[in-house]
Amino acid sequence: MQKFLLLNGPNLNLLGKREKGIYGDTDFLNYYDTLRKRYPNIELEYFQSNVEGEIINKLHQTGYSYDGIILNAGAYTHTSVAIRDAIAAITTPVVEVHISNILTRENFRHSSMIGPVCRGSIMGFGLDSYRLGIESLLK
Amino acid sequence: MQKFLLLNGPNLNLLGKREKGIYGDTDFLNYYDTLRKRYPNIELEYFQSNVEGEIINKLHQTGYSYDGIILNAGAYTHTSVAIRDAIAAITTPVVEVHISNILTRENFRHSSMIGPVCRGSIMGFGLDSYRLGIESLLK
Amino acid sequence: MQKFLLLNGPNLNLLGKREKGIYGDTDFLNYYDTLRKRYPNIELEYFQSNVEGEIINKLHQTGYSYDGIILNAGAYTHTSVAIRDAIAAITTPVVEVHISNILTRENFRHSSMIGPVCRGSIMGFGLDSYRLGIESLLK
Amino acid sequence: MQKFLLLNGPNLNLLGKREKGIYGDTDFLNYYDTLRKRYPNIELEYFQSNVEGEIINKLHQTGYSYDGIILNAGAYTHTSVAIRDAIAAITTPVVEVHISNILTRENFRHSSMIGPVCRGSIMGFGLDSYRLGIESLLK
Amino acid sequence: MQKFLLLNGPNLNLLGKREKGIYGDTDFLNYYDTLRKRYPNIELEYFQSNVEGEIINKLHQTGYSYDGIILNAGAYTHTSVAIRDAIAAITTPVVEVHISNILTRENFRHSSMIGPVCRGSIMGFGLDSYRLGIESLLK
Amino acid sequence: MQKFLLLNGPNLNLLGKREKGIYGDTDFLNYYDTLRKRYPNIELEYFQSNVEGEIINKLHQTGYSYDGIILNAGAYTHTSVAIRDAIAAITTPVVEVHISNILTRENFRHSSMIGPVCRGSIMGFGLDSYRLGIESLLK
Amino acid sequence: MQKFLLLNGPNLNLLGKREKGIYGDTDFLNYYDTLRKRYPNIELEYFQSNVEGEIINKLHQTGYSYDGIILNAGAYTHTSVAIRDAIAAITTPVVEVHISNILTRENFRHSSMIGPVCRGSIMGFGLDSYRLGIESLLK
Amino acid sequence: MQKFLLLNGPNLNLLGKREKGIYGDTDFLNYYDTLRKRYPNIELEYFQSNVEGEIINKLHQTGYSYDGIILNAGAYTHTSVAIRDAIAAITTPVVEVHISNILTRENFRHSSMIGPVCRGSIMGFGLDSYRLGIESLLK
Amino acid sequence: MQKFLLLNGPNLNLLGKREKGIYGDTDFLNYYDTLRKRYPNIELEYFQSNVEGEIINKLHQTGYSYDGIILNAGAYTHTSVAIRDAIAAITTPVVEVHISNILTRENFRHSSMIGPVCRGSIMGFGLDSYRLGIESLLK
Amino acid sequence: MQKFLLLNGPNLNLLGKREKGIYGDTDFLNYYDTLRKRYPNIELEYFQSNVEGEIINKLHQTGYSYDGIILNAGAYTHTSVAIRDAIAAITTPVVEVHISNILTRENFRHSSMIGPVCRGSIMGFGLDSYRLGIESLLK
Amino acid sequence: MQKFLLLNGPNLNLLGKREKGIYGDTDFLNYYDTLRKRYPNIELEYFQSNVEGEIINKLHQTGYSYDGIILNAGAYTHTSVAIRDAIAAITTPVVEVHISNILTRENFRHSSMIGPVCRGSIMGFGLDSYRLGIESLLK
Amino acid sequence: MQKFLLLNGPNLNLLGKREKGIYGDTDFLNYYDTLRKRYPNIELEYFQSNVEGEIINKLHQTGYSYDGIILNAGAYTHTSVAIRDAIAAITTPVVEVHISNILTRENFRHSSMIGPVCRGSIMGFGLDSYRLGIESLLK
Repeated sequence: MQKFLLLNGPNLNLLGKREKGIYGDTDFLNYYDTLRKRYPNIELEYFQSNVEGEIINKLHQTGYSYDGIILNAGAYTHTSVAIRDAIAAITTPVVEVHISNILTRENFRHSSMIGPVCRGSIMGFGLDSYRLGIESLLK
Repeated sequence: MQKFLLLNGPNLNLLGKREKGIYGDTDFLNYYDTLRKRYPNIELEYFQSNVEGEIINKLHQTGYSYDGIILNAGAYTHTSVAIRDAIAAITTPVVEVHISNILTRENFRHSSMIGPVCRGSIMGFGLDSYRLGIESLLK
Repeated sequence: MQKFLLLNGPNLNLLGKREKGIYGDTDFLNYYDTLRKRYPNIELEYFQSNVEGEIINKLHQTGYSYDGIILNAGAYTHTSVAIRDAIAAITTPVVEVHISNILTRENFRHSSMIGPVCRGSIMGFGLDSYRLGIESLLK
Repeated sequence: MQKFLLLNGPNLNLLGKREKGIYGDTDFLNYYDTLRKRYPNIELEYFQSNVEGEIINKLHQTGYSYDGIILNAGAYTHTSVAIRDAIAAITTPVVEVHISNILTRENFRHSSMIGPVCRGSIMGFGLDSYRLGIESLLK
Repeated sequence: MQKFLLLNGPNLNLLGKREKGIYGDTDFLNYYDTLRKRYPNIELEYFQSNVEGEIINKLHQTGYSYDGIILNAGAYTHTSVAIRDAIAAITTPVVEVHISNILTRENFRHSSMIGPVCRGSIMGFGLDSYRLGIESLLK
Repeated sequence: MQKFLLLNGPNLNLLGKREKGIYGDTDFLNYYDTLRKRYPNIELEYFQSNVEGEIINKLHQTGYSYDGIILNAGAYTHTSVAIRDAIAAITTPVVEVHISNILTRENFRHSSMIGPVCRGSIMGFGLDSYRLGIESLLK
Repeated sequence: MQKFLLLNGPNLNLLGKREKGIYGDTDFLNYYDTLRKRYPNIELEYFQSNVEGEIINKLHQTGYSYDGIILNAGAYTHTSVAIRDAIAAITTPVVEVHISNILTRENFRHSSMIGPVCRGSIMGFGLDSYRLGIESLLK
Repeated sequence: MQKFLLLNGPNLNLLGKREKGIYGDTDFLNYYDTLRKRYPNIELEYFQSNVEGEIINKLHQTGYSYDGIILNAGAYTHTSVAIRDAIAAITTPVVEVHISNILTRENFRHSSMIGPVCRGSIMGFGLDSYRLGIESLLK
Repeated sequence: MQKFLLLNGPNLNLLGKREKGIYGDTDFLNYYDTLRKRYPNIELEYFQSNVEGEIINKLHQTGYSYDGIILNAGAYTHTSVAIRDAIAAITTPVVEVHISNILTRENFRHSSMIGPVCRGSIMGFGLDSYRLGIESLLK
Repeated sequence: MQKFLLLNGPNLNLLGKREKGIYGDTDFLNYYDTLRKRYPNIELEYFQSNVEGEIINKLHQTGYSYDGIILNAGAYTHTSVAIRDAIAAITTPVVEVHISNILTRENFRHSSMIGPVCRGSIMGFGLDSYRLGIESLLK
Repeated sequence: MQKFLLLNGPNLNLLGKREKGIYGDTDFLNYYDTLRKRYPNIELEYFQSNVEGEIINKLHQTGYSYDGIILNAGAYTHTSVAIRDAIAAITTPVVEVHISNILTRENFRHSSMIGPVCRGSIMGFGLDSYRLGIESLLK
Repeated sequence: MQKFLLLNGPNLNLLGKREKGIYGDTDFLNYYDTLRKRYPNIELEYFQSNVEGEIINKLHQTGYSYDGIILNAGAYTHTSVAIRDAIAAITTPVVEVHISNILTRENFRHSSMIGPVCRGSIMGFGLDSYRLGIESLLK
């Protein structure tokens, strides 16, 4: 049985509460439930932190044994060399996902520091980006 | 029955023949066959051109009636304001896909002129990026 | 009798259909009729293409015999060195026109590759920019 | 009867005297006379100043009652945020005109600080740019 | 008794009239009255000009004897080296204030040429920015 | 009774100890006492952390119930997209304050990542910037 | 017997007619004749198009069987990622040639998008650049 | 008898009073006296203004009849396209002078907008720069 | 007896495990042992964290009493203004070390945010950089 | 009989010894012999120096009497304004040659300071670039 | 008796021979004679070299004993950090002179690497710039 | 017995004489003596030149036989592609050293052209940087 980690970065704990025009109004834990039901044959773990270093710690802990990581690094996407280095260091494949289309937002959100070390990137499909991330790892 | 267009830009007719280290060695027409078999309930059309203007023409012809367009604009991704304008003008949702992770290649391939007007973007999963594009439109 | 060419670039065939907030809702062919009636003493030809090279071909064909060209190069305004070279090569004066005020749109639309080789530029007056273009050549 | 202001910025009082290769050799007051005769049904006022603040004052005085302003801001075109703010604050439409094609001159003349808040821009037609400016407001 | 100057730059005479969405609808003279009543123990002078050089002249006249200057340089904030030099030359402390949050507006409004030579800066509080400016000098 | 949070970012725990030429020699806790005495009718809480994610956590905890937050994000001012997103997500108004005039220091301190999502900004008045922050929220 | 393609991009059909100060006054077909006589033992084909996509098509058709391609991509030199990709994809060596010294012209002509994927580059020798291109492939 | 104008821009009326570390402590009028005594055979006029437009007016008034202008444009050196245009329009030679070495000050003082249209530039010699300016015109 | 701190930033806990081509295959704790044996007369402490704020905390705790700090800030080298501020605030000398030559890696690793506030920098010598760091403090 | 100079800049004395992957393994003196045999009717001189000023001296000595100079300025290609000025000053035509394709190497090698003052440029053909340089001057 | 050095950089030995449109047609040695006659009470030495390091050597030899150096560093003006360092290291005042107005030439000539460490700069007056340089040191 | 070269670039012959605030007041030859005594088992040669090409010559002469080179390229660090190429061409390892911390000085000293081809870099430790350079090669 495959084991995947859904890993969310800063402020994504506010999903469903924060800037609904951009992020929609679904609480992430509800969505997480939906995903688990849709993929009963995958062990699906969920972790969120606002602390850059804790995201790195989590990548270190899971990155040599899990079968895949679906990572929405939130704001750290654009600034964190340290998370990039963690992804490059581990052996589990990481897929970058974003709820919104970051190319239609402020300039500083247009570039991804972590994209070049991920297997691939998926963005703009709302919460469905996470499901597509799982799909991409299943194949 | 839903109708989707797979739309490929310049040099993608050489797939399976060109720079196999980057693009793999599968001929696109074979892959197209595989996709049609996997999604028997979708009408799946395929079009490729090396001429920017013909891609625009195709977008105009299909962009008010089809249910979705999966577009790999190839090199025009990075330079074509005209294709961007065509996508913005039509009403059919367009999903941007790329076979390789464009962020790991030359600088001029890091930005996408068409990304901001697409529903979402998927890149880096090899030919499987097209399947994920279809998945994203099915939902 | 003077002979002028109205030359439209990519996506301008969608006028009246596309992004009406920016471009208005008049079909260009209707407007073309209005212009022909307003200027009965001018031979007024109309040509549109989405293909950069066909616009160049048209400039070559008309650019040594017509009395003036009113050119809305659309998206190619911002990217086409090739159209710029064609304008510089021919002897017929070319006037650059734009329906919208390109300075109020995205950054990549702020500069014109063709402006420096045109006799003059007119922008922001809606379809009336074409009439002003004719006026500028009549004098 | 419509009331328009022809508003000229710095050094344009030297017209016909200064850099004739670029600006031609017609004195502006003579040209102003020609325009008044051509448009007998428009009340056409003329004002010139080398002082940025006086141009702003004039915009304030006329910008809530006149029917149109044809503005050649000269060198202030490229540097004056203050004139831009004045144009944005008033309700009379302002049309930007230039005698020369500013895109063929020094780099610092290629951008217009005031263009984005004007109704439209006309440049490169010599003194005829002013007439086209009037035409654009008549419609 | 302390003596302060409220010094307003270009277009601020239109306050309450101009772009109310950004600047609010209070006339500055009314607000000036309110301030004088609130601070009966301060001599509070008010001066406005659209002319960069007159603002410099006023800074020279007051800048060696007044106890403080609250300066909203308007558009000159972003462009005037000359006002910056005047502030650096005088001995009266100058506080920079802005009605709107200039960081949320156009790029060219994000930097302040005068900020580095002012005692401090206050922005984004509407007209209340002026009151906070007075408060900062009272201490 | 209004409830405000004084929120300090990295290294501000060293106040009174660190670089006194820039930050002064008052210990922040002493100053905090002074403020509480000056504003007896406000509930004034104080929190400091060197960890970016803990500042975000604190903003989440207080940002839907407190009446105002006075934030000196220290070095994170210039780099933290994540704190910016937290401020944008919460509903309590946040005022940005700085002890020194950041415009007179190194280039990388001239821009504020959080300024555009704050109600307003106050900088350069020493510790008094905090008091002015409270004043701005009282109104 | 070796087979080479002389491949010309946009506006080069006007050679001998267009901007003679830069490009000289020889018609290219005459020059092509001269070359064929000079190299009787080489099969020398000539193709010109103003359409970017047709140049790509020609590269695809010849690029796996011919012994060499002498390419003057004209204006597309500076903008076409798509032609670059076509050159990188084929196996026939391509030599970049230019009639004029592009380094002495406008800034946007100083860089070559296709140079890095060509075997070598030759520029500034007038029409003789083509002959030198043939020479470079003969060796 | 030759007639020269000493033309000073903004804040130079404060000389001897302002930032003595940079500009020295001599009042300019005293220095002007010294110069007149040193060059009894030259008619030496002096004019200073803080208003950009008045400097332009003065250049227009003297620029077709005087034998030379020694211009210290102060802060307008770095920003004024309008003064540059005035210098280019007149026929009297203009020499640019600066008291301090502008290359050792802030970045925005390193470039001169007016330098390219002046006969020559002299800077860094304190008030003696004016005398060298006169010397340069005498020859 | 001197007391030094070896302080490692993010991902350096993976040393010997991560990207061995760049960082070598020695576990840092083994190396730490070697160093302690080589310098028996120095008290050598070791601390590593992936959390930026914890590195700052450690600098605060040791930075007023230890005799030297050898800091490899890892990815935070290039982004952390906060660690820079902490180093500038403390009195213990800090030496910057890097295992690899950061100038031969990606562009974003070429600049060091902390270098300017360190006593000196040593890079490119593999783990031996730490020993050289100790040497530099011994002297 | 024509007289040409082969002029080599810094480090080219190491040819055949240095970085063979880029420059090949032929000693330049051997190649020079080959060239002299191939062109028995040309007087072919060879000079190499690592000193920028000596290259300038050689250009001065030969640049008014020789029939052509084939210059590989090596690293000075990218930095030497002084060699550029020497080429512009002399009357003998200079052809720029490079062994490797400089566009495929580091960014700082992509631009040529001397290219704009040379008759033409040839690069990427290995040592054969020198022969093509001779060919270009023979014609 | 004062002792001055006239120090000329690369290509200035060609004066009177090289690009006469820019530099005039006077041989420098003739001009040197004229200067010695004009200033009989100054010991005036002349040195020219095309080698950057020899200019540095000369600065070292004279820079602790001569009364002044008039330096035209030619092309090294724009590139030589080493000459800048030499000027900063010596105690004799150095005056930078240029024959032409470097601001009207290519962009790479607009900035001076040595200007900030010279006492002052004089440019644009033809050979007379040297005389003005002497004048500036005499005072 | 190992053989090392201490290689110093421009102006370092002035050490102990030049800008003592930055470089200290020790004469380099004295320091060289100290080093020779400290490392009696190493053959330590010293060479200094102000001429870029002579430094290259020295690198060529020693770079295939010595055991290490400690290079302080002085000002050429920031500008010399030619020295970089020489270092890359030779086989002896080169260690870059600097007396001062170049990151705290002018911007143009922040980047090192030679760093990427050196084994490692050491800077900011005063003359002790040379000793650390020797240490780094001993290991």
